[in-house]
Amino acid sequence: MSHGFETLAGARSSTTERTLCADLSSATPGQTVRLQGWVHRRRELAALTFLVVRDRTGLAQVVVKDVDLAVPPEETAVTVTGLATANPQAPGGIEVTSPVIEALGDPADTPPVELWRPTLTAGLPTLLDQAATTWRHPAQRAKWELAAASLHGFRSTLDATGFTEVHSPKLVESATESGANVFEVDYFGRKAYLAQSPQFYKQVLVGVFERVYEVGPVFRAEPHDTVRHLAQYTSLDVELGFIEDHREVVACLRDVVAGMVAAIHERAASAVERLAIDVPVVPDEFPVLHFREALEIAGAPADEPDLAPAHERALGAWAKEEHGSDFVVVEGYPTANRAFYSHPDPEDPHWSRSFDLIFRGTELVSGAQRLHRYDDYVATLAERGYPLEPYASYVDAFRRGIPPHGGFAIGLERWTSRLTGSANVREVTLFPRDLHRLAP
Amino acid sequence: MSHGFETLAGARSSTTERTLCADLSSATPGQTVRLQGWVHRRRELAALTFLVVRDRTGLAQVVVKDVDLAVPPEETAVTVTGLATANPQAPGGIEVTSPVIEALGDPADTPPVELWRPTLTAGLPTLLDQAATTWRHPAQRAKWELAAASLHGFRSTLDATGFTEVHSPKLVESATESGANVFEVDYFGRKAYLAQSPQFYKQVLVGVFERVYEVGPVFRAEPHDTVRHLAQYTSLDVELGFIEDHREVVACLRDVVAGMVAAIHERAASAVERLAIDVPVVPDEFPVLHFREALEIAGAPADEPDLAPAHERALGAWAKEEHGSDFVVVEGYPTANRAFYSHPDPEDPHWSRSFDLIFRGTELVSGAQRLHRYDDYVATLAERGYPLEPYASYVDAFRRGIPPHGGFAIGLERWTSRLTGSANVREVTLFPRDLHRLAP
Repeated sequence: MSHGFETLAGARSSTTERTLCADLSSATPGQTVRLQGWVHRRRELAALTFLVVRDRTGLAQVVVKDVDLAVPPEETAVTVTGLATANPQAPGGIEVTSPVIEALGDPADTPPVELWRPTLTAGLPTLLDQAATTWRHPAQRAKWELAAASLHGFRSTLDATGFTEVHSPKLVESATESGANVFEVDYFGRKAYLAQSPQFYKQVLVGVFERVYEVGPVFRAEPHDTVRHLAQYTSLDVELGFIEDHREVVACLRDVVAGMVAAIHERAASAVERLAIDVPVVPDEFPVLHFREALEIAGAPADEPDLAPAHERALGAWAKEEHGSDFVVVEGYPTANRAFYSHPDPEDPHWSRSFDLIFRGTELVSGAQRLHRYDDYVATLAERGYPLEPYASYVDAFRRGIPPHGGFAIGLERWTSRLTGSANVREVTLFPRDLHRLAP
Repeated sequence: MSHGFETLAGARSSTTERTLCADLSSATPGQTVRLQGWVHRRRELAALTFLVVRDRTGLAQVVVKDVDLAVPPEETAVTVTGLATANPQAPGGIEVTSPVIEALGDPADTPPVELWRPTLTAGLPTLLDQAATTWRHPAQRAKWELAAASLHGFRSTLDATGFTEVHSPKLVESATESGANVFEVDYFGRKAYLAQSPQFYKQVLVGVFERVYEVGPVFRAEPHDTVRHLAQYTSLDVELGFIEDHREVVACLRDVVAGMVAAIHERAASAVERLAIDVPVVPDEFPVLHFREALEIAGAPADEPDLAPAHERALGAWAKEEHGSDFVVVEGYPTANRAFYSHPDPEDPHWSRSFDLIFRGTELVSGAQRLHRYDDYVATLAERGYPLEPYASYVDAFRRGIPPHGGFAIGLERWTSRLTGSANVREVTLFPRDLHRLAP
């Protein structure tokens, strides 16, 4: 057992670089290695203890034969220094033997769930109440790894094509976009509201940068307790100018989604494997249906004003069957049923130049060409019976040469919940906020 | 003049790709080109009109000899199709002649400021009230281009070194970090607060991902009207685990700042040129002073609890003089004067393992190693006379193996205001929010 202590003296000096668990398989047997991470699993047998160390890259097996060597309880942060030793049974073919274990803090309390089990069996309330702990489970963590990789792919696609990242105010003067479902803030004694989207800012900024994107929080005071809605979510907003029509926006969306999927393969392959999910293939072009055709395919009456979830499921099945595609775009929703800033189809203004992207039978993204003329805004607000005043500064911006433009917004949590087949969007949100939940 | 119309027929078809202004210099004389952008300047002479088109990449000169061809007013969005023609006097040596001009909307109203002048002469109130327009000025826009490039460099540095991007809640249950200066929100009939920083979330997430960053809005109900403070700003937050001490955090910060500077050179060279700014050189290591030495150099009494702005200026001058560096790190601020979660120096707990980065004589970044043991949190809160209850769920997280960790936060607007030598942080914020300003 003196061997362990000899190793210690050499290994604790800063000359032994940390080995990440995923890289242990490349260590040379006999080499001294230094792991850092958490005690994922401590299994005490009669003659030895198996210790599994978890770090951000994976798991590593440590064999403790020294009966006097205390292994700290699960979830304690540790440094383990020992010898890389070949063992065909160990993950990656290498385990660590003759370890010296240093706890990097006090022994951890017993976690509320057994994180070492391959499947996290916690119910939703535990998952959310104990989020700081439950996100440590490798399969749970994988869900956010997909989200982070997607963000990377979103930005890299846009950064490569002339877009500028922007950051817009989250505190706004009037609740313009929908009026309802808005959070009120005490702003130095005045009323302010939390922004429901960066819609107006991104449109105005097309006048500056032509092509903009923003990744940031948006806020909805959603009074219903559903599996799809959050009080705060992360919106991936895009807006581009000098377009011919909404089809250019659809083409941009296709490239963005393709970039997100590519980044998942490049940056989150291990998460894909842990979750055993089926990452979609993004076709060179999304199949596109007009709203009228979509209703027909879904077997809905021709005068339906919108697509119901059952219709979206039918369209998802149709796209898979006809085009082998997980994606289908529906364009031309009735103008009256879309946001007032949606551009009507000039050939027949009953229909709009708006679209939804349906992914595996559920709406994932909404987008459109927007109105770009001041007079069109004034007329549309009047038609809808909206007062001009709260919109005045927004609408005024269109007096100064905003080119034809359009855009879309992807809800990050909706994307990752569909990707992972999560029943509830809260399962893929780090610390969700809803009608009942304001902590942790 | 028929020439123009012939060109039109061919050029308006989608076969003529758009040429960006910056690329016009590479066009072949005689080639038909299609520009899109804004009427930056319209100068009508007796026999011809000079039209300068502005797009996101720069300016291009168009010569209009057709007296019947109306040139829309400044700031109107246009498509200009014409012939690339060599002219040594034109920017880039190529101008556009025989143009056909298509307005992409109604003629723009006269802007509140003359955007075509090389220098934007608007005072601060106009700059801010008319932000949607004033950001169009090439020199003004350049300020945000520096910000966007910096964000890119920040992320790419961290993405390459094992960090995970996270997004944390902006609505929180208790105003833990400072108590004061917090915005109150009506959260479904309960009180909630806007997060002043993602501090607690990023620390807890070190327990999940080891190394995390977040770029997002933070909110301070700052009741003072100063040139340095905003009610909302963009915080670039970093936190990393398994560190030896705060010096590893300083090293990470150095790499991040170097990445931001490199991205400015790579992605915003034209903005640097338009602003004629002096981009700092980031040394391989930041010079580091202990707080005690810093006081001495600044000629301050040894019992000063903090550095005053004049001290920071003196330290900036010292760093330039002694190390040729625009940057200097001061470490070891008195523990009692830093946030309660700062880690004391184990050798002498009067001093902390915290630091500030001073850039050109002004504090730019604060950071520290943090406490990582539950007992240390409980003891520190008690010492400071803070109640435990509002911190309970945060402090509880440290019962489950959070490794030694530290981090820092960079205020994006402070960085770009220092970089551009802007007197007021509002000048570099797209749509600032402060005590008086909630629009546009």
